[in-house]
Amino acid sequence: MSAPFAERHIGTDAAAQWQMLDALGYDSVDALVERAVPASIHVDPTIDSVLPPAASEADTLAELRDLASQNRVARSMIGIGYYDTITPSVIQRNVLENPSWYTAYTPYQPEISQGRLEALINFQTMVTDLTGLQTANASMLDESTAVVEGMLVARRASKSRSNVFLVDADALPQTRALLDHRAAALGIEIVLTDFADDGAIDAFGAFVQYPGASGRVWDPSDVIAEVQAQGGLVVVAADLLALTLLRSPGSLGADVAVGTTQRFGVPMGFGGPHAGYMAVRAGLERQLPGRLVGVSMDAAGHPAYRLSLQTREQHIRREKATSNICTAQVLLAVMASMYAVYHGPDGLRRIATDVAGNAGLLAQWLTEAGNELAHDEFFDTVVVRTPGRAEQVVAAARERGYQLWFRDSDSVGISVDETTSVSDLHHLVQVFGGPAQRAFGFVAGGGLTHLPDDLRRTDGFLTHPVFNTHRSETAMMRYLKQLADRDYALDRGMIPLGSCTMKLNAATEMAAVTWPEFSRIHPFAPLDDVAGYLVMIEQLESWLAEVTGYDAVSLQPNAGSQGELAGLLAIRGYHHAAGDAHREVCLIPSSAHGTNAASAVLAGMKVVVVACDEAGNVDLDDLRAKIALHAENLSALMITYPSTHGVYEQDVVDITSAVHAAGGQVYVDGANLNALLGFARFGDLGGDVSHLNLHKTFAIPHGGGGPGVGPVAAKAHLAPYLPSHPLAQRAEHAGGFVFDGGPISAAPYGSASILPISWAYMRMMGAPGLRAATGAAVLAANYIAVRLREYYPVLYAGEGGLVAHECILDLRPLREETGVTVDDVAKRLIDYGFHAPTMSFPVAGTLMVEPTESEDLGEIERFIEAMIAIHAEAVAVAGGRWPADDNPLVNAPHTASSVIEGEWEHPYTRAEAVYPVHTLVRTKYWPPVRRIDNAYGDRNLVCACPPPEAFA
Amino acid sequence: MSAPFAERHIGTDAAAQWQMLDALGYDSVDALVERAVPASIHVDPTIDSVLPPAASEADTLAELRDLASQNRVARSMIGIGYYDTITPSVIQRNVLENPSWYTAYTPYQPEISQGRLEALINFQTMVTDLTGLQTANASMLDESTAVVEGMLVARRASKSRSNVFLVDADALPQTRALLDHRAAALGIEIVLTDFADDGAIDAFGAFVQYPGASGRVWDPSDVIAEVQAQGGLVVVAADLLALTLLRSPGSLGADVAVGTTQRFGVPMGFGGPHAGYMAVRAGLERQLPGRLVGVSMDAAGHPAYRLSLQTREQHIRREKATSNICTAQVLLAVMASMYAVYHGPDGLRRIATDVAGNAGLLAQWLTEAGNELAHDEFFDTVVVRTPGRAEQVVAAARERGYQLWFRDSDSVGISVDETTSVSDLHHLVQVFGGPAQRAFGFVAGGGLTHLPDDLRRTDGFLTHPVFNTHRSETAMMRYLKQLADRDYALDRGMIPLGSCTMKLNAATEMAAVTWPEFSRIHPFAPLDDVAGYLVMIEQLESWLAEVTGYDAVSLQPNAGSQGELAGLLAIRGYHHAAGDAHREVCLIPSSAHGTNAASAVLAGMKVVVVACDEAGNVDLDDLRAKIALHAENLSALMITYPSTHGVYEQDVVDITSAVHAAGGQVYVDGANLNALLGFARFGDLGGDVSHLNLHKTFAIPHGGGGPGVGPVAAKAHLAPYLPSHPLAQRAEHAGGFVFDGGPISAAPYGSASILPISWAYMRMMGAPGLRAATGAAVLAANYIAVRLREYYPVLYAGEGGLVAHECILDLRPLREETGVTVDDVAKRLIDYGFHAPTMSFPVAGTLMVEPTESEDLGEIERFIEAMIAIHAEAVAVAGGRWPADDNPLVNAPHTASSVIEGEWEHPYTRAEAVYPVHTLVRTKYWPPVRRIDNAYGDRNLVCACPPPEAFA
Repeated sequence: MSAPFAERHIGTDAAAQWQMLDALGYDSVDALVERAVPASIHVDPTIDSVLPPAASEADTLAELRDLASQNRVARSMIGIGYYDTITPSVIQRNVLENPSWYTAYTPYQPEISQGRLEALINFQTMVTDLTGLQTANASMLDESTAVVEGMLVARRASKSRSNVFLVDADALPQTRALLDHRAAALGIEIVLTDFADDGAIDAFGAFVQYPGASGRVWDPSDVIAEVQAQGGLVVVAADLLALTLLRSPGSLGADVAVGTTQRFGVPMGFGGPHAGYMAVRAGLERQLPGRLVGVSMDAAGHPAYRLSLQTREQHIRREKATSNICTAQVLLAVMASMYAVYHGPDGLRRIATDVAGNAGLLAQWLTEAGNELAHDEFFDTVVVRTPGRAEQVVAAARERGYQLWFRDSDSVGISVDETTSVSDLHHLVQVFGGPAQRAFGFVAGGGLTHLPDDLRRTDGFLTHPVFNTHRSETAMMRYLKQLADRDYALDRGMIPLGSCTMKLNAATEMAAVTWPEFSRIHPFAPLDDVAGYLVMIEQLESWLAEVTGYDAVSLQPNAGSQGELAGLLAIRGYHHAAGDAHREVCLIPSSAHGTNAASAVLAGMKVVVVACDEAGNVDLDDLRAKIALHAENLSALMITYPSTHGVYEQDVVDITSAVHAAGGQVYVDGANLNALLGFARFGDLGGDVSHLNLHKTFAIPHGGGGPGVGPVAAKAHLAPYLPSHPLAQRAEHAGGFVFDGGPISAAPYGSASILPISWAYMRMMGAPGLRAATGAAVLAANYIAVRLREYYPVLYAGEGGLVAHECILDLRPLREETGVTVDDVAKRLIDYGFHAPTMSFPVAGTLMVEPTESEDLGEIERFIEAMIAIHAEAVAVAGGRWPADDNPLVNAPHTASSVIEGEWEHPYTRAEAVYPVHTLVRTKYWPPVRRIDNAYGDRNLVCACPPPEAFA
Repeated sequence: MSAPFAERHIGTDAAAQWQMLDALGYDSVDALVERAVPASIHVDPTIDSVLPPAASEADTLAELRDLASQNRVARSMIGIGYYDTITPSVIQRNVLENPSWYTAYTPYQPEISQGRLEALINFQTMVTDLTGLQTANASMLDESTAVVEGMLVARRASKSRSNVFLVDADALPQTRALLDHRAAALGIEIVLTDFADDGAIDAFGAFVQYPGASGRVWDPSDVIAEVQAQGGLVVVAADLLALTLLRSPGSLGADVAVGTTQRFGVPMGFGGPHAGYMAVRAGLERQLPGRLVGVSMDAAGHPAYRLSLQTREQHIRREKATSNICTAQVLLAVMASMYAVYHGPDGLRRIATDVAGNAGLLAQWLTEAGNELAHDEFFDTVVVRTPGRAEQVVAAARERGYQLWFRDSDSVGISVDETTSVSDLHHLVQVFGGPAQRAFGFVAGGGLTHLPDDLRRTDGFLTHPVFNTHRSETAMMRYLKQLADRDYALDRGMIPLGSCTMKLNAATEMAAVTWPEFSRIHPFAPLDDVAGYLVMIEQLESWLAEVTGYDAVSLQPNAGSQGELAGLLAIRGYHHAAGDAHREVCLIPSSAHGTNAASAVLAGMKVVVVACDEAGNVDLDDLRAKIALHAENLSALMITYPSTHGVYEQDVVDITSAVHAAGGQVYVDGANLNALLGFARFGDLGGDVSHLNLHKTFAIPHGGGGPGVGPVAAKAHLAPYLPSHPLAQRAEHAGGFVFDGGPISAAPYGSASILPISWAYMRMMGAPGLRAATGAAVLAANYIAVRLREYYPVLYAGEGGLVAHECILDLRPLREETGVTVDDVAKRLIDYGFHAPTMSFPVAGTLMVEPTESEDLGEIERFIEAMIAIHAEAVAVAGGRWPADDNPLVNAPHTASSVIEGEWEHPYTRAEAVYPVHTLVRTKYWPPVRRIDNAYGDRNLVCACPPPEAFA
């Protein structure tokens, strides 16, 4: 029998753990963690678990194959925002199945993220070119939430005082539902319209679906002009594939364009993850939510990519934030951008022409068979009038293996995509009375007469060489490899990012993601076709509920921030139902992650900050005072446990009790769950609702900055207010709960196709394995703390001087003594072959180190050695060995070319620059650029591909 | 519609081809190739093809899924040399599915192959440790051919004059068949024995299966001593997993140990590919066939791996060669070695204990149910006596999903492997009368009383740190990444190796290899369980026959060398059947690849060399003279077309006619088929039989030096003598032919699991795509020839001054003028980011360049630029700019550390050393070692992992 998976997942074996415990003075991991975690919240490890005993990797794969076999891969022609697509195999293998791409972190350290930043700037260029707008961000969570964000941009940027947002009646149903739900919390009035005669309505903005959900293509430029004339902004959701043939939103006058890039080679995956997009006209670029990749330059003056305008981000602006989005969909944005790189403008146009041609042929054959269509002008979707027969028609099509869209009892929608063949159309039309025999061997798609002439695109796009060079598979494979080679991901070494939990993403966990039975499933496919998914989802809901001490779980939120918002909206719903609509105050400790405040604002709450004491714990006196002050209106307390300072607060139960006593609800942020699993449960320590980060604690890879999955878990009394979805296959969830809180993501189960990862993780770890992982994670953090504290003070500690799963190293004393900054240390770590820990969060001038359970002792020691060596270098600077402005720290990181080309004029040697530890000669990771100038990049905002000459 | 696959496979698009044609003065690719290829052999491109029209990648995957669904993944308990196994997902994803591993070439350029060389030295260490012998090679083709090679080692090394080789009656049936077939051609007498009472037989060697095919474990040490006492050598085939518990062959006195490493994580794959192994006692190391990795040192004095003792190889020794093996099974050897690295000695022992324990439990339950077993002492296999009922029992087991081994009508064999669960045993034993209910929840495998005490292993193994460090998946993933980072493969750039055809291995082609329906199939599974495979094989046979102009094809040979041998044995069989056993002379041109002669010797032929003229063509006069001289005894002519000189010989039809007129057969070596496909066919130009290299022309990746697949194709009159197999599911082949030539590989369809690659390649290219690929390949070679000929003379050319798909650049004039050698240029190309072309073959002092059709013009120009720049560097040396013994060429390749550490004392700059072209700053590949000292390595043979201190 192979080693149990937990022994593969956890980096330190028994011998290593003994050695580490010895350094800490404990004789078992349990003893260590139980000393750190308040006794009042210990769980009884002997209780029966709903989690089955740990399965082997092979057995888990067999179970996943069984679940897969319960889904049915039909030919989806449902449309409504999701289309079957062909993922080029070269992209699937070299991106989606390659740990160099999927185990990378968000590119906050741009010097070691140039590969994915280049891919993302390709993405932005693709979006701006196709939408005809000036600036695009590097992805949104999905199309529907992008529309909501577009509405928020409009509200901020509009000079209108109106509270009204006009919404296209032909918008996607899920988008309409999301707009309704999100607008309600913010007091925005949604007015549904067909734009026929309400140009006069005063509104701060309007939303147009282009083409419409019905497939209809029409020219919205007059409507856009009218809304703008009243001071409103117009948001257009546009299909990127259609835009290769149709006039761009920019050319029609839109202020904002949004949408999804799913059909650019990203499988439907039962709803996600996919990359949404947003682009804005000139003047609105600083209103863009999410991440924006820009071009700056490095210390050698070479162009270098970085995230621009980070000051806009929620973690800086807190309650003044205008969006709570943290995660983007980087891995999926990379895939979509590479689809464009591989096909190029001609290839995309060819695919679109094929799709539109087939749709035209379908319309022709349907008409010939005596059917009436709702519209004459369309791109890929036709609506057939089937008075009273829609259900029957949909069922007949399903018999033949085709899924159609049941619009209402009188009409069905049919969408054509790049996988649709003429033979498919022939088979399908028989359901609508078409002939069983037809000579169509010669037909190569119909004409494009159904595209309005005056809406035909005439301007070029994707003219940059990157979209016109990598046409052969060999060239594409090498481009992907070259980009991956520039980046640092978990496959190279530790990424000890505090609060980000960069643990192993095991290959077995990733296996099922690319199986067609999970990837080629439409999110609105009929119940019977998704049975395997629903079984898995129900199991995962129940397992997550158990390990967190909650009753109900929704997997719909496709990012932690969205889970957080869903949790707060559930609290809001609860208070409203109880007639307590005035309960609007949300208490948030000063140490909280900025997203907490941003989410509270978006849930319509008023943020009141609670002070923290010197140890980073909530100041109980201030909390009691704030509760007393706001008792009437108290809605919730948001608290992170263990705290963002990386310690287990001893008073947590007192805190939650005080909030409950005042009628408030307790929101426990699940970001640090990796320090608790198996030892304590949020529900037991007083939480009413939490979001979890499956991409932290439950092994979903970070993908270079997304996908994330942020389930929301709650006690039974909040369950009715958890996310629902108008198009969900089933209303009931694990435990028999029915949720009715309104949608938070475009798809009923969010990023469903990556749920097998967390399912497999829990299945292979079992409850004891999860507990062992927590123990190993806490042990590793404490070991690093004890080994490094004589060089860098550990800022916060709890009982017994212990930290939780991460430790904050205070670098301010070092700066005072030596002038070396936290930035210098972080960049110097690159020279040592490491990704830096989290910088200056939650406290400026600190590094927060989270090794996770997956690192082995060898790698942990390598990190400790590097940190001590860097300390010595800083001391050498202070001691005058090197000047303050010319030493290995301020000049870090060093590229290969910087130590090879030209004269060497530094007071340290080339080898000291790049091989400060001799083992690096064998394993060196070479950063592709030197330190990047952030200010320059923000002053000179360039967010599209620079010309090749820039790199000459 | 996406671009057709052929446009993705072929690197040059129409615009690039026009540009290249312009430089050559042709107006179409067809015109170019038709000028080069003799008109007499042109095929008519308009003829109907049995190849279906090219399918898209998506449709091809769908067809493969359909074929897969026609195979049945049952629980295989057949054994007989093949066992189900669990491929660790981390190895599957990061090796088998990673182009950095699978697109690499054989490590003939060791400086850029250190990663896979390290993996292979791990393999050798694993084999020597487990077998208890001194030196192991880096893999054999399969266990049965390894036994044959062991027999040949014994014959060479034995002082006995006997012609007898004793063979264990309990040997695997396929091994016995292979020994019989191969011995017959060499005049060796095989004597089957149970070793009970024939210690007195005089023999040059003996073969022992340990454990036996029947599962029996016995102590062969007395038998070994007796054979050795008579001057014979003993070859033991041993199961590596069993050796973790049983005494090693070395400790029992064996001279040679052979076997397979399949069950170390390499899927059964319907028979292959897997890595066989061979290890020998001290004193025999220079007798080892195949490749041997050794430790030498580089120019900086650091340890570095390389292939040792290459002078033993067949391409050097030609007709004096003792083995014709070229290909090893590198990719599979890497996987098996990594299985050992990941599990370590404790893990392997645990797996073996589990397997043996379950086998013991099975025996116990069978006995309890009233069954009689053939043996009491066994490792993993039991034989049950089922008088008259074997067929019925096997059928009943199959009903329950278990495949057993039908030994004969009175007994069945059952083998346990690491995938077998106690629950499997319970289900299975019911077929043998076991109870339907049983309390076995608590059973964790039985004891090991069935392993003889005096055969229990007591010595340690795998004590080197590499087998005791990478225990977590994170550590393993990083180790694999670090090794891959050291190597140069097709994912980095062009590998323009003449005669090796390093073309694209497309991701779609690779996809099906890892599907369970192809990978988890036993080679001797019942016919009904392998229907999908047989359909695919029949189609591939018929497609290959058509494109080569032959009638019948066997896919059994698992390397080109074996296909060649099979072809020659077919000729031998044909002559024998005609009463012409005296026809033994094989004519081989002096320019032929050394394998030709080696294969002829192993087929029992006498080699007579035919001269070549100055242009590298066969000297027709000499050929006619040799034919006349040997007319009576002429067996065959072996010819390569186009020639190994890379030109299309105009007289080829005259040559083949002359041979036929004298009663000889024509063997056309298929190595250069990539220059012909679609334009001419071997069968049409007079070939009677050929081998093809699917790993060249038909897109199977080289895997760093294997797997290869070498089908043999023949005209109808030779078909009866093509490879057969005693355990084949079906005797009939495409075209209705029945082969009866005896086996050439251990499995009926050789390396079956990688056949989907070639199948997919042909399916996606279609006949026009294959022709276009040939055209693009020939165009690229001619373009390089014309661009480089003013710097490096092109040694051979045919009509119109044209070359075929490769060109030989003569570097001897450069050496004369500048002192710079072909070695210097090859190593300097590494600094420029290239894998060198083929060195000094077929002519010393030359480089043979084969760009293939998959390289795009950008990469071709980059290569031309590098070659011109290197020429300029050589001229600069001659001109005195740099001394002859200190310049960028003689010092190449330059590692990063060589230009960074210490003082720089060369007359050229660091940047000139490593960035001779400025674009390299962005895309630099860093070789991990400097130039390796070959002589030192051969003088100081070290073929196991060096201690870590060696690298300090």
